[in-house]
Amino acid sequence: MKDRSIHFRPIGVIRTPHHEGQKTPIQPVFAKGIKGTVEMDPEYQKGLKDLDGFSHIYLLYYFDRSEEMNLRVVPYLDSRPRGLFATRAPHRPNKIGLSLVRLTGIQDRILHIEDVDMLDQTPLLDIKPFIERFDVRTQTRCGWQGSVSDDVACNVGSRKHHLQNFKSKHDDRM
Amino acid sequence: MKDRSIHFRPIGVIRTPHHEGQKTPIQPVFAKGIKGTVEMDPEYQKGLKDLDGFSHIYLLYYFDRSEEMNLRVVPYLDSRPRGLFATRAPHRPNKIGLSLVRLTGIQDRILHIEDVDMLDQTPLLDIKPFIERFDVRTQTRCGWQGSVSDDVACNVGSRKHHLQNFKSKHDDRM
Repeated sequence: MKDRSIHFRPIGVIRTPHHEGQKTPIQPVFAKGIKGTVEMDPEYQKGLKDLDGFSHIYLLYYFDRSEEMNLRVVPYLDSRPRGLFATRAPHRPNKIGLSLVRLTGIQDRILHIEDVDMLDQTPLLDIKPFIERFDVRTQTRCGWQGSVSDDVACNVGSRKHHLQNFKSKHDDRM
Repeated sequence: MKDRSIHFRPIGVIRTPHHEGQKTPIQPVFAKGIKGTVEMDPEYQKGLKDLDGFSHIYLLYYFDRSEEMNLRVVPYLDSRPRGLFATRAPHRPNKIGLSLVRLTGIQDRILHIEDVDMLDQTPLLDIKPFIERFDVRTQTRCGWQGSVSDDVACNVGSRKHHLQNFKSKHDDRM
């Protein structure tokens, strides 16, 4: 039988002020202004050229402290079990995290970022630039998320961080 | 020394009409209406519950036919070498692809999708729901991409597929 295993290695580490999962905002929109850094491994520094032209970047990373995967999960913002793939829960078959953060500067191999929602020392797998004409969709259907009000989302999702910064009605999308 | 290797396994396969990289649209926005499917492995079918409420999903996948990584690349839409992480090129240290596609239906463990920009038989790593209040940013800076006109982006990025479907000025964002 063909070996389907795929091997990756961290290309850097994400530093944040978050040390406990239960106190960490669940998404960048609930972590507005919370600062962190990405420390790229020296061998990849050359690949950062031109990235400073982008105000927002996707970080793909490894949920290294995620728990056992379960195909039914009760999302942070909900009270009913949902299919895992209809959630952004970290406990996934392949524990890849995706966060869209603000890039405020690059010094050598250190990226200064804001809106961080991952734990300190999270291993970085990839960086991709956010490109508005590729990455924005509007008038979408958002399933069970659609029944969660912005207020509830903000209260629960921020874990009490920076509550004042998440405006309802999406009128302040950074 | 600590072993930093991370092991993933495909959870399914993406089926598309694309068999040659050079003829494959470079982003979902340039592949509007091109249909494909995701065939989830049976063991993960239970995790698909509730996903059908979402009109758009992120697919994370493995660029299994990507070539040698180079930290400077000339993007498809540009003529100058750029830092790899300022591009969406597939030849990355960790060959993870990210595409935001339209979900049109789910039958058992088969997802029907549109706007596919990946090669047929691409191994699937993860699915995450697109959640508009989490995932949209506007008024961003997009670096070298900002100097590429919508017309050029469309002509080059579509690889001649469905040219008529990509409107300039982002007035038809699906």
